[in-house]
Amino acid sequence: MNMRLLATAALSALPFAALADPLPSWNDTPTKAAIIAFVERVSDPNTAEFVPEEARIATFDNDGTLWGEQPLYFQLIYALDRLREKAEADPSILKSDALKAAAKGDTDTVLASGQDGLLEILNVSHSGMSVEAFQGDVADWIATARHPTTGMTYNQMIYAPMLELLDYLETSGFQTWIVSGGGIHFMRAFASETYGIPVERIIGSATPTRYEVVDGVPVIIKDPGIAFVDDKAGKPVGIDSHIGRRPIFVGGNSDGDFQMLEYATAGDGPALGVIVHHTDAEREFAYDRESHIGKLEKGLDEAEQRGWVIIDMQNDWVRIWPQ
Amino acid sequence: MNMRLLATAALSALPFAALADPLPSWNDTPTKAAIIAFVERVSDPNTAEFVPEEARIATFDNDGTLWGEQPLYFQLIYALDRLREKAEADPSILKSDALKAAAKGDTDTVLASGQDGLLEILNVSHSGMSVEAFQGDVADWIATARHPTTGMTYNQMIYAPMLELLDYLETSGFQTWIVSGGGIHFMRAFASETYGIPVERIIGSATPTRYEVVDGVPVIIKDPGIAFVDDKAGKPVGIDSHIGRRPIFVGGNSDGDFQMLEYATAGDGPALGVIVHHTDAEREFAYDRESHIGKLEKGLDEAEQRGWVIIDMQNDWVRIWPQ
Repeated sequence: MNMRLLATAALSALPFAALADPLPSWNDTPTKAAIIAFVERVSDPNTAEFVPEEARIATFDNDGTLWGEQPLYFQLIYALDRLREKAEADPSILKSDALKAAAKGDTDTVLASGQDGLLEILNVSHSGMSVEAFQGDVADWIATARHPTTGMTYNQMIYAPMLELLDYLETSGFQTWIVSGGGIHFMRAFASETYGIPVERIIGSATPTRYEVVDGVPVIIKDPGIAFVDDKAGKPVGIDSHIGRRPIFVGGNSDGDFQMLEYATAGDGPALGVIVHHTDAEREFAYDRESHIGKLEKGLDEAEQRGWVIIDMQNDWVRIWPQ
Repeated sequence: MNMRLLATAALSALPFAALADPLPSWNDTPTKAAIIAFVERVSDPNTAEFVPEEARIATFDNDGTLWGEQPLYFQLIYALDRLREKAEADPSILKSDALKAAAKGDTDTVLASGQDGLLEILNVSHSGMSVEAFQGDVADWIATARHPTTGMTYNQMIYAPMLELLDYLETSGFQTWIVSGGGIHFMRAFASETYGIPVERIIGSATPTRYEVVDGVPVIIKDPGIAFVDDKAGKPVGIDSHIGRRPIFVGGNSDGDFQMLEYATAGDGPALGVIVHHTDAEREFAYDRESHIGKLEKGLDEAEQRGWVIIDMQNDWVRIWPQ
């Protein structure tokens, strides 16, 4: 289901005054005013800060910026679900302590197992198959799996105010992209439909891949391991490779987005960085400096001096979820 | 200069009958008929082979398909030009036999030096600087350097019939991409302007890159070496990474494009592969099976059984160059 279309349909039932507001799920705070002022400034050919359409590139992190990421990255929940299912059918696949802990649902041990342990877990569900087979499986999971505390499907746990922002940017001549630490193939299996962003504009981390003809049908095979980490300093590298231009609008939520924000905003010309700060324990989750997932420390410390706008979920957002 | 705009402007001076022909630089041969029949079939919602717009992906090789590639890949001519200039200023950079041969213009020895020798030569001009600095230098070269036999600038040595084909596909709802064995940063420095294709839709081989903040300005640095080879089986891999969908129209000219053609055309659903065959020694160059540059052997042998259309430059094209 395309949530942006849904949101637009819901909007068109509202009276005209509300329609004139491009961000109705945002409270009328300085945050909203700063975003609208920036978009209007760079879109207006009569301002000194006008940016032609082809350079109006906006990039957004996904986990914690467009959808939730607690209590674990949703992609890791997918990997653990699939690992458990495979281990039930064939327990001999549990060759390491990390895999055994994962199959038991012992997420503390999983998180403590570090990069190597996480990679072993990811490899079970993310390699040894074609991209098409993998993405079909992810789509099945997205359609049926439920978040442990909210009971929602994962593609319902997207932030309505951010959907409106994506839509507002697109209608203002921006090209919106997702630049996620999550896997590029995982993301593309649902994010295009969910956010209304074409698959080629979704960038992420990647397994090694190779071309192979299997029974006369050419496919791309996902191999074990990590070929590219689209996080921290990897985000500007991914942007250069896939977009080839410096964004002028960047949305993130954690220190994994720091370099992407810096890349866009430290150069010449107008640019805006925004950081979603998870301050709403009641409607979503509250976390920042001490969190293992979505840790936000450097961004909070440097936002003011760098001119980045902090989005305070509790105060800036009318609602969290689209429905 | 945007050659597609130029071509369109030239066309609009012609009488109406010519305007109705989307490919006026193509003779009325079965090749042209096959291309037009395919495009009309997949664009018509009333046919069984209709393909929705978002899946109408067309990918084109560059060297030998959209522009020339003789007597050497133009990017290699750029690398040799820059190497000679740098060696004149500082002969101590010529640390190997391949570099010494390159600086003397001894291209036979350069080509015989293999991957390692070529890489040494490329590293001199393609690494140790920011992407922006590199692309500025490439743009300078494109604007001034002249082809050794035609005397044209390199961005004039593009094929007018292929420009028309790109334009015809775009106006028929296709999204056109370049998938080149040439360097992604090299290509993007001129190809977007030359062909009217946005930079993000230009894919190519790549040096390693990294993010760095230099004197407060964040940049992407090109490092020595090769991180990705966008040739042969690398082309479908690059397509999966950057596009995320299987093309339904592929244009190539050499066996380096074989897998890209196969990837698009061996699966289910309508797809067309076309191969530019260099048969015109008088107006351009004639080469195929025996050529070191743009070798075409497997493609010629298998085109008929795979349903690929061979474009015979001499017989199928009214003209070669746009001007």
